[in-house]
Amino acid sequence: MDIKFVAPGEIEAQSMAMITKELGDRELDPKEAPIIKRVIHTTADFDFADNLVFSDGVVDILQEAIRRGATIVADTEMARAGMNKKKLASFGGHVECFMSHQDVAAEAKSRGITRAAVSMERAAEIPGPVIFAIGNAPTALIKLYDLIGEGRIHPTGIIAVPVGFVNVVEAKELILRTNVPHIVARGRKGGSPVAATIINALLYSMP
Amino acid sequence: MDIKFVAPGEIEAQSMAMITKELGDRELDPKEAPIIKRVIHTTADFDFADNLVFSDGVVDILQEAIRRGATIVADTEMARAGMNKKKLASFGGHVECFMSHQDVAAEAKSRGITRAAVSMERAAEIPGPVIFAIGNAPTALIKLYDLIGEGRIHPTGIIAVPVGFVNVVEAKELILRTNVPHIVARGRKGGSPVAATIINALLYSMP
Repeated sequence: MDIKFVAPGEIEAQSMAMITKELGDRELDPKEAPIIKRVIHTTADFDFADNLVFSDGVVDILQEAIRRGATIVADTEMARAGMNKKKLASFGGHVECFMSHQDVAAEAKSRGITRAAVSMERAAEIPGPVIFAIGNAPTALIKLYDLIGEGRIHPTGIIAVPVGFVNVVEAKELILRTNVPHIVARGRKGGSPVAATIINALLYSMP
Repeated sequence: MDIKFVAPGEIEAQSMAMITKELGDRELDPKEAPIIKRVIHTTADFDFADNLVFSDGVVDILQEAIRRGATIVADTEMARAGMNKKKLASFGGHVECFMSHQDVAAEAKSRGITRAAVSMERAAEIPGPVIFAIGNAPTALIKLYDLIGEGRIHPTGIIAVPVGFVNVVEAKELILRTNVPHIVARGRKGGSPVAATIINALLYSMP
């Protein structure tokens, strides 16, 4: 096994070519393909070619919202760290993450619920288009589902890609049942980098 | 599929119990087990039960270094964001990430190498025990390998878990050849959350 020097600017293109090759003759929707491939690039896990579920027209809807300066709500600082905030800002958008706010932690503790759930209530007060990018906390999705059902929140879209074991599969299935435009990583897999990657893939493939 | 309410403080324990159960009668080294399980918890990917390679005594060595206030060098802000910096600080340690330093970007560009490679040269100047936690850039590992060979750097340990396609497998194999204590995720898989998780698992299982 030899290391071949690859110029920094060519590493991503070469990775993408390897992914395209390994996907073989699999037919991907042309709007979904850049997102699926970038998630595989981030995870080296081809399971995402099967796991990712896109609601009708979701890519157009989310990109249009980003163009109008949508706020992205992340459920972890890791996801926020991975998003291209500069590119987002060029459209007037930014990323919010309420998880580390001290009053969120205090309220979560006193109510016996997760910080992620409290964060979603905070997010319900954000004006303008909002895209949720949830890569960690299924409780965030459960709270979102409830708030949507109660008519207390009207997200432009939900990226539902938490990873894990407890209520993760179930919480994603809840989001699949909503009428809110969504991209969901069905099953246990996902994560903060997947959430960040989907936002970045949307940004990089803006028409 | 029903959502069952799980108290926030019990979600992790319940996840870990599920992981232990699904690992079945697989025998794990007692020092390695908390790290392997926490990586599976982070990724929902049982491949890591096979992929993670530990050099002899590495867990003890890294924990001892942390106790002496080791500096952790991360190759992404995402990995840094995921590490428990408070717990690390309780031992006098902190996390460095040179990737976003402006002069690193400028130098990388002028030399035609990656920021990650330049970052490793910067890291070579850090005094005291240093643990590298590399979850993204194989070029960081290649540069580390060269600096070790040249005697210009003497890391206490290397966590070598980049994810991806171009030179990722090969760069990890280089680290496996060194005498530096290491934890390596063999193959393509890994990532910033895996790097952060291994640091956290070391912190949480300090004897």
